Amino acid sequence: MGISLPLTEQREMSAEIPTDPDRARYPQYGRYLDELEPGQVFEHPRGFTFDTANMLHFARTHMQANPLYLNAQYARAHGFPDLPASPQMVFNVTLSLGVQNDSEKAMANLGYYQVQFVRPVYPGDSLRAFTRVLERKDRGPDKPGIARIRTVGVNQHDQVVLQYERKIMVGWRGDRLPTTPAPEVSLEFPGEHSPMVELPLHDAPAMAGLTGPNTYCDDFSPGDIIVHANGRTITEEHMALTYLVGNSHPLHFDRIFSSGLSGKMSGEPIVYGGLVFAWLEGLASRDVSEHALWELGYTEGYHTQPAFAGDTVGALTRILAVDDAPGSGDYGVVTMQLIGVKNISAAAALDKHGGDLFVKEDAKRGLGKEKITDKIFEIERRLLVRRRTA
Amino acid sequence: MGISLPLTEQREMSAEIPTDPDRARYPQYGRYLDELEPGQVFEHPRGFTFDTANMLHFARTHMQANPLYLNAQYARAHGFPDLPASPQMVFNVTLSLGVQNDSEKAMANLGYYQVQFVRPVYPGDSLRAFTRVLERKDRGPDKPGIARIRTVGVNQHDQVVLQYERKIMVGWRGDRLPTTPAPEVSLEFPGEHSPMVELPLHDAPAMAGLTGPNTYCDDFSPGDIIVHANGRTITEEHMALTYLVGNSHPLHFDRIFSSGLSGKMSGEPIVYGGLVFAWLEGLASRDVSEHALWELGYTEGYHTQPAFAGDTVGALTRILAVDDAPGSGDYGVVTMQLIGVKNISAAAALDKHGGDLFVKEDAKRGLGKEKITDKIFEIERRLLVRRRTA
Amino acid sequence: MGISLPLTEQREMSAEIPTDPDRARYPQYGRYLDELEPGQVFEHPRGFTFDTANMLHFARTHMQANPLYLNAQYARAHGFPDLPASPQMVFNVTLSLGVQNDSEKAMANLGYYQVQFVRPVYPGDSLRAFTRVLERKDRGPDKPGIARIRTVGVNQHDQVVLQYERKIMVGWRGDRLPTTPAPEVSLEFPGEHSPMVELPLHDAPAMAGLTGPNTYCDDFSPGDIIVHANGRTITEEHMALTYLVGNSHPLHFDRIFSSGLSGKMSGEPIVYGGLVFAWLEGLASRDVSEHALWELGYTEGYHTQPAFAGDTVGALTRILAVDDAPGSGDYGVVTMQLIGVKNISAAAALDKHGGDLFVKEDAKRGLGKEKITDKIFEIERRLLVRRRTA
Repeated sequence: MGISLPLTEQREMSAEIPTDPDRARYPQYGRYLDELEPGQVFEHPRGFTFDTANMLHFARTHMQANPLYLNAQYARAHGFPDLPASPQMVFNVTLSLGVQNDSEKAMANLGYYQVQFVRPVYPGDSLRAFTRVLERKDRGPDKPGIARIRTVGVNQHDQVVLQYERKIMVGWRGDRLPTTPAPEVSLEFPGEHSPMVELPLHDAPAMAGLTGPNTYCDDFSPGDIIVHANGRTITEEHMALTYLVGNSHPLHFDRIFSSGLSGKMSGEPIVYGGLVFAWLEGLASRDVSEHALWELGYTEGYHTQPAFAGDTVGALTRILAVDDAPGSGDYGVVTMQLIGVKNISAAAALDKHGGDLFVKEDAKRGLGKEKITDKIFEIERRLLVRRRTA
Repeated sequence: MGISLPLTEQREMSAEIPTDPDRARYPQYGRYLDELEPGQVFEHPRGFTFDTANMLHFARTHMQANPLYLNAQYARAHGFPDLPASPQMVFNVTLSLGVQNDSEKAMANLGYYQVQFVRPVYPGDSLRAFTRVLERKDRGPDKPGIARIRTVGVNQHDQVVLQYERKIMVGWRGDRLPTTPAPEVSLEFPGEHSPMVELPLHDAPAMAGLTGPNTYCDDFSPGDIIVHANGRTITEEHMALTYLVGNSHPLHFDRIFSSGLSGKMSGEPIVYGGLVFAWLEGLASRDVSEHALWELGYTEGYHTQPAFAGDTVGALTRILAVDDAPGSGDYGVVTMQLIGVKNISAAAALDKHGGDLFVKEDAKRGLGKEKITDKIFEIERRLLVRRRTA
Repeated sequence: MGISLPLTEQREMSAEIPTDPDRARYPQYGRYLDELEPGQVFEHPRGFTFDTANMLHFARTHMQANPLYLNAQYARAHGFPDLPASPQMVFNVTLSLGVQNDSEKAMANLGYYQVQFVRPVYPGDSLRAFTRVLERKDRGPDKPGIARIRTVGVNQHDQVVLQYERKIMVGWRGDRLPTTPAPEVSLEFPGEHSPMVELPLHDAPAMAGLTGPNTYCDDFSPGDIIVHANGRTITEEHMALTYLVGNSHPLHFDRIFSSGLSGKMSGEPIVYGGLVFAWLEGLASRDVSEHALWELGYTEGYHTQPAFAGDTVGALTRILAVDDAPGSGDYGVVTMQLIGVKNISAAAALDKHGGDLFVKEDAKRGLGKEKITDKIFEIERRLLVRRRTA
């Protein structure tokens, strides 16, 4: 076992090897519509190792306020063996790992559905991801089609940590170069049908001085609207952050590529949507999730406008439901709608658009309403939140 | 102990829940002058876990040259059990943790006083912070007042690591929304009256090849001026760095907020002053503190002009005193004044302004001198510095 | 052992100490040509501690696709005891540590030669670096001269991890201030004459689902040209990244300095060349090095044009040789030429310039060819790459 290599002098060679431009090849990644077949399974490249520092960095960059993701002492006091990665980071990473196979040729990410966080991720864990193509909807030879895919992230013990569905819009290959083949898949496609989350939570409240007194489960009722005070100006940082979570789509960091596109994506690199969602969730966190001990999931997530470097994003939350948590009186499950706006404060957006801010953009036409171009994102989230009495 | 949660399908709900904009609430953070009462104590939210990576990242981002904060082998060779966090980072973090209660509504940070570093912080330590309001100076109903506050940072063993005072300028609430209440305080207000720093230093010098031969304690005399050669251009990075140290004031990262202000703070987000100080200290470090083994403290720290993305900052140091370290001939205590300038090199600033650079800006009027608008910062620092003979 | 320091009140002192601008000193770093003597040895300041997070951050920031540098599970499955630092990062750091002595006064980095990676670097390792001046070529009193230097990086066990030569262009001191003296050197100048790399590799392939099926050693033949699809827009991030790897040259982060220069370096801060190389290597990695288990070395590396914030860089690779690895049928040694371009896609650059892209720029005049200003970098690399059959 092992190999011994002598390091000999490295002789210059380039002038001796004839150059023939016809020997050029142009590897392409992602899949065109014709290359996506329902039932097809991809194992995604590289994987991703989490450690305390990249977890803290992700949480803080995106304005996270829940101490569970910022303070290891707090996490341990609540029963976790170590600082857990924020579900938002697990989502960003898993989705990004899939880009090279799933969507590096996609023209748009249409939506996130049934995102489920099945297990915590801790420092030292290495994740990898798998995708199955569920459905391909062709809309004729002149139009991009829509693929529905299912992605699962697993840890180094092959345990599912996250699963979700996504719809993407993808064009036909036409006379473009075919994309690079995927490797053999090493594992049966994973996934859990009726997942149970097991959390090592303590019954007793702990370190309550580190969170506010009026953001317990008991403080929320269906219909409450919470307007989050602070915004965040996104800078060109987003280009590096894209690949820091593993996303390889050039739309987000290659100005030559993005300015060469035609249509409304043409121009400056677009901020990867996962990062936009992360900022919005962070901006909302001190008002609605600082007492959350688990994010159960998301659904119906849509990026309704792109964001660019220089944009300032803001967030609003509307409470949709407050339910008992199964088997425990110490927590409740709060379902909420998270809305993002840009280049207008959240308060001004509510003044300007009123309740229409909370109507899904793709339902607007059917309701005879105008789309709201200040609005950039909408999603429904479900969280496990501690009760005050606990 | 522990909880089991079934992850059921997440049914879309937003269309079913009536939206009533009158149900909106607008949580506000920070305190207006009327909300600050002398004697009041806050426990600050979230806390902050230090790890090797965020310590190295902070030190390097801010141009630190003392190997003690960059090289774990060097730190161990000097007697530390592990890489210590730079006192500058501990100061930045502790101050930032206090912003949500102390100063998120403040209009200006007026000064830092009696900053004392009481214990080292190591990787894995989690800090939290407490503030007591010491004094509130009203200047009439039409004018913002001045609050004097005392803040203490403690580690996970409830030991004090840092304590200091700060003056801030805060406006009256008037008819604005009240701010969110603070939680009950979990600990008696901490702090040490006659703190002793215990440092595990070895007597023998170690790894002297990693530091310069002419920056020992013996190389400094009162009156010496050291002009630091390099400057640092601050980029939009500062917006992310602000919350990386835990500071939640939107003035530093929310362009909608900062451009909506009236007066001289209006416009681009202002660089958080703690970061400015960190850059200046780093730029000075290879000339004055590469042999420092402890930063005893700071006082009389003033940000005399704001800095913005695009500004290039530079630094000068003047030696104020060189004293024996109590009980040890191997070290001395060097007191020095650190001055920051912007958009002019440190050497050109000294040429242009001469000794007036070292006169406190708020003493200028009394001395019949003009304020220096090139100057952005002034502070006095006390460091424990190894002697050459040691 | 240890020291106890009472923290007494810090009395304000600056007004009491007379200020005399004639007491100013201006420490300078780097060496002018007259200060570089063949045979001279420098031990470089500070050193640098690697940890998992800064390794992952470096790899991801620069678009690395080889899972060996991104995924600890993958690294262990291949026989490494932990995630190894990417050789590219080890090169960037070692070179940067040398800047304060070697090149902080240099006007240009002329080339990299015989870069050899002798041992892996793991999380927790602390590196320091030494340089010997090999040769000084004077070109007359009015012209900058050329110094050839040899630099060696060692770990905390004083084992060599990296060694290389570099040529730099340096001006005469003239009537400028002398530079600060270097400390005594603590170690005999290290270096290995016939280095053997010992790698703890397993024979069996592992986790092949994380890498592509057509980038094994067997997939490359001399003369192959691979055009890498994605580019990367470099942002002002480069200023912070420069000192994150330890490089102290103000040309890269001090706009006052860089805009004060005369000639073609004048203007915006120039991106540190090590970072440019890292981005190009990363952009190439998923096409040519995702199965690489060691980087044996580089030679004949030249930065033929500078890069600035806002530039988008792209990369092409040409295969120069494919050889058996000594003593193992499971791997081959692939020698390749890496070419960087800017503000043009790699594919468009090949269309426009054809085979001339692969001709060394300093050979162009002798061949009657024009230099290519779209081209920013050229180097030859040697990698140990797994065979498909293994």
